[in-house]
Formats: sequence, structure tokens, C-alpha cells
Amino acid sequence: MTSSEPYIFELAIKVRDYEVDAEGIVNNAVYLHYLEHTRHEFCEAAGFSFRQMHHEGLDPVVSKIEIRYIRPLGLGQSMVSKLRLHRRGPVFVFGQDIFTPDGQAVVKATVDIVSFENGKISRGERLAQAFHKFL
Amino acid sequence: MTSSEPYIFELAIKVRDYEVDAEGIVNNAVYLHYLEHTRHEFCEAAGFSFRQMHHEGLDPVVSKIEIRYIRPLGLGQSMVSKLRLHRRGPVFVFGQDIFTPDGQAVVKATVDIVSFENGKISRGERLAQAFHKFL
Amino acid sequence: MTSSEPYIFELAIKVRDYEVDAEGIVNNAVYLHYLEHTRHEFCEAAGFSFRQMHHEGLDPVVSKIEIRYIRPLGLGQSMVSKLRLHRRGPVFVFGQDIFTPDGQAVVKATVDIVSFENGKISRGERLAQAFHKFL
Amino acid sequence: MTSSEPYIFELAIKVRDYEVDAEGIVNNAVYLHYLEHTRHEFCEAAGFSFRQMHHEGLDPVVSKIEIRYIRPLGLGQSMVSKLRLHRRGPVFVFGQDIFTPDGQAVVKATVDIVSFENGKISRGERLAQAFHKFL
Repeated sequence: MTSSEPYIFELAIKVRDYEVDAEGIVNNAVYLHYLEHTRHEFCEAAGFSFRQMHHEGLDPVVSKIEIRYIRPLGLGQSMVSKLRLHRRGPVFVFGQDIFTPDGQAVVKATVDIVSFENGKISRGERLAQAFHKFL
Repeated sequence: MTSSEPYIFELAIKVRDYEVDAEGIVNNAVYLHYLEHTRHEFCEAAGFSFRQMHHEGLDPVVSKIEIRYIRPLGLGQSMVSKLRLHRRGPVFVFGQDIFTPDGQAVVKATVDIVSFENGKISRGERLAQAFHKFL
Repeated sequence: MTSSEPYIFELAIKVRDYEVDAEGIVNNAVYLHYLEHTRHEFCEAAGFSFRQMHHEGLDPVVSKIEIRYIRPLGLGQSMVSKLRLHRRGPVFVFGQDIFTPDGQAVVKATVDIVSFENGKISRGERLAQAFHKFL
Repeated sequence: MTSSEPYIFELAIKVRDYEVDAEGIVNNAVYLHYLEHTRHEFCEAAGFSFRQMHHEGLDPVVSKIEIRYIRPLGLGQSMVSKLRLHRRGPVFVFGQDIFTPDGQAVVKATVDIVSFENGKISRGERLAQAFHKFL
């Protein structure tokens, strides 16, 4: 995935005060919550859900995350969380970047998802089908 | 339940930095996590678990919490979380107080638990059996 | 405060998947986050902020919470978080109820706030001034 | 940093029930909390603290995290969180791996820390001094 690929989904999120730690900035782990929430909202907007997949014996799981922290967010700030999607064999790579409302980068992340079918890692065909509009 | 009843379980817990919010004190919601963790450790020490109950069709759920915040905890501090148990008909009342290591009160809480059996609220007989040593 | 008093603020919130625990329902502590977030958004909408107060040496702190859990929320559900405000001497009592979108009660809570001025508990005059439109 | 370098610190941690999500496994973001808590306990054991550094105008911040999820943890499980430290110019690289008690890998992570001195990124000399025993 190159950074020139277009984003296919974006979500506005606002920092909640309890997400800010004693240093006055959003705690590093909270960004993974933002990223996950963005993926779920993307899936829901695309007409399916991780939970529905689960009921069908298909379990997408996070296998790797790489995240760079560029600019911290603080109390009361807003952000725009953007998402790209790319397939690399059995791995679905979400390029997820968060920006301030005026376009400054906050975090840049890559999240690898693989899918398990009935407990075994799959080649990703069913997930590819679900995401076909975006690949 | 009167405050003269003895505690039947206690657990040492240490504040994790991410639990402290921008005001430099443990966020009010985090104490409910400490209280829940204490109840679960108590149950485990007593030889059973909420999850095992769940598998047997018995679901203890929190129906009410009353918590008074007396003294805030901050970065790096330790606490002792203590627990009493009392039954009031179908309701199991956990008296849960948290103290600093030198005995100063941090929070004082009462947590009401009722049990659902196969989806219906129960009279609590099975839960009473599980807790009989402590009632 | 009686339940016949009108709500003065409401906020739509959607459950984030990570807020749901292993039992498939929103964890009890998470509701305190929803309630806190609602208070902060209320204050912001009313033109001031807890953090601004803090800079002015005024620290509103939660002294007591009473919360009843009536109906659990699960994955993907939405809620409406409503708020009333009432003063009882130095204590500002927020009546905070959360409902499903079709009006079914989820939790009903009372949150007591007192304000510290330069480290000492105050009679609440400055906070009353900030909230005067709502009292 | 190669994987043959020895670990210099380890911490036993037990999963708390609220850290487990609806899929029955510890949520991906929670591992960053475990890693952060481990770093802080390491620093405390080594005789200094992030908060003390902060008071001295030195702010270590996380600039990048790479984490691989190998084996999920569930309700009631225990783990051992281990840590290595390595310096690469201004960057302090923590190699942080979490294992089950019997030695199976749970997550493997690399956490990059840089230090800001009075608001500007530093060459890391003061942090190197603090960590000199471990570099």
C-alpha cells in the first residue's frame, strides 16, 4: 500500500476527557481504540459486521499493528480518522491515519487483519468477498 | 449491612499510570474496575467463578452501585481493596471499601448483585449456595 | 430533585465494541465514562469547561455516584444520555439517565459534584454562577 | 536489537475481566497498557520515574509501536511481561514481549521512546544517563 492510494472511509471522533492521561495527552493505547472503532464503523457502513462474520464462523483478528505517534491530541480536541484497505494474500492491510480537523497528522498506522474460519487461519477468500468493493 | 461487619477478603492493587486522568487522579470510573476485579478475585479464591456460573446458566449481574469518593489516588500509589458480603432476599450486597496502605479511606461503595437463571431473575438460592461460607 | 424535572441536555452516544465485555454487554464501569462525557459536553455547550475552571483554581470533583443498571446495552447499540441539574447547598446534583433510542431506560444515576477552590471545599458560589442559567 | 539479547526486567500480570472484549479475548489496545505498565514498573524498580523526569523538564514520549499478536489471552489468564532496552541515537528502543506462564509467546512488540527537553526533541543524553546501567 502506498500513501498515494485514496482513503475509502473517514470518521469524525472527539477526545473524551477520560482518554487523556496525567501528561495531558491522549494515552497511546487509546488510539488503537479509535482505529478499531473506525474499522467497525467502516464495516457497518459497508453493510456487514465483524459480529455477523463471527456468527458465520469467520473470525477476523488483528495480527499486527504498527503505529507512529506524530502529534498528540489533548482535552476536548477533535480528529478525523481515515482508512484505506489493501489485500496481501491472506492478510488484509488497513492503512489508518488520524488527522486534526485542519489536516495535521496525529498518528499513522498499519493494521494487519487475518481471518480464521472455524478456528483455522484462512486464505481470506470470504473476507475478500465481503470487502470486494474496496479492493 | 453495618460497617461493623468484618471484611472477608482483601486485595492489594497498584494504580497503573494510564488509569490517572488529566487532573492527576484516578478517574472515577476506574474504581468500578478495581471493585469488579476484587469481586472476581474473591470468587476465584473462594473456588468458583462468574464465568463458570455463566456456563451453568447462572448470570450474576450488577443491579446497583453506590460509591462515595473520599480521597483521590494518584500516580504510582497503592491501595488495599476490601470486601464484605451480605444477602438481602434475591440481592447480594457487596460492601466494598478501598483504603490507602496506611488505612485512609479512598472510596466506600455498595454493589448490589442479582442473579439471572436462564434469562429470568432468580430468588438467589444457587448464588446463596455458592456463597454460603460467607453469609 | 424529582423525576418530573425536565432534562436540560442530551447527547447521542454509540457503543464502541471495546466497551463491551466478555458477557456481551457494556461493562458497568463504562457507563460512568458515558455520564462524565455527557457532563463535559453539557458544560462545553453551556460555554465553559472543567479544564478552564481548573486553570482558575476551581476544581469540581465527583463526591458520590449512585447508579442503577436497568437494561444492558450490547454491541453496536445506540443510546441517548440525558441530564438534569439541581443544587443542594455546596453539592451540585446531576440527575443522569441513559435511554435506548426508543425510550427504554438503560441506567439511572445521580452524580454529586462539589467544588474545591484552591484546595479547599467551597460553598459552591462560583460553580452556581457558572450554572446559573440551569438552576 | 536482536532477539538474542537478554531481558532485563519482567513483571507478572493477570488479566482483569473487563479487559476482555465480546470475542472473549483481551482487546488489542489493552496490551499497550500492559506494555506501558511494565515500562513504568521497570523504571520505578531502576530508581527513577517518568513523572520525576517530567518535573525536571524531561519528557519521554512514545514515538512508535510495532506489535505482533501471536496468541490471545482470555478470562482469568496470567502472563509474564518481559523487557529489553537498546539505544539507537536519540531513540530508546524497548523490546517488549509477553508470554504465558509456560513460555508461549502472546505478543512481541517494539516500543520507540524519544525524549523532549523543555519542549524540544533531545539527543537523549539525559535519558541515556538514567538508563546507563541497562545500555
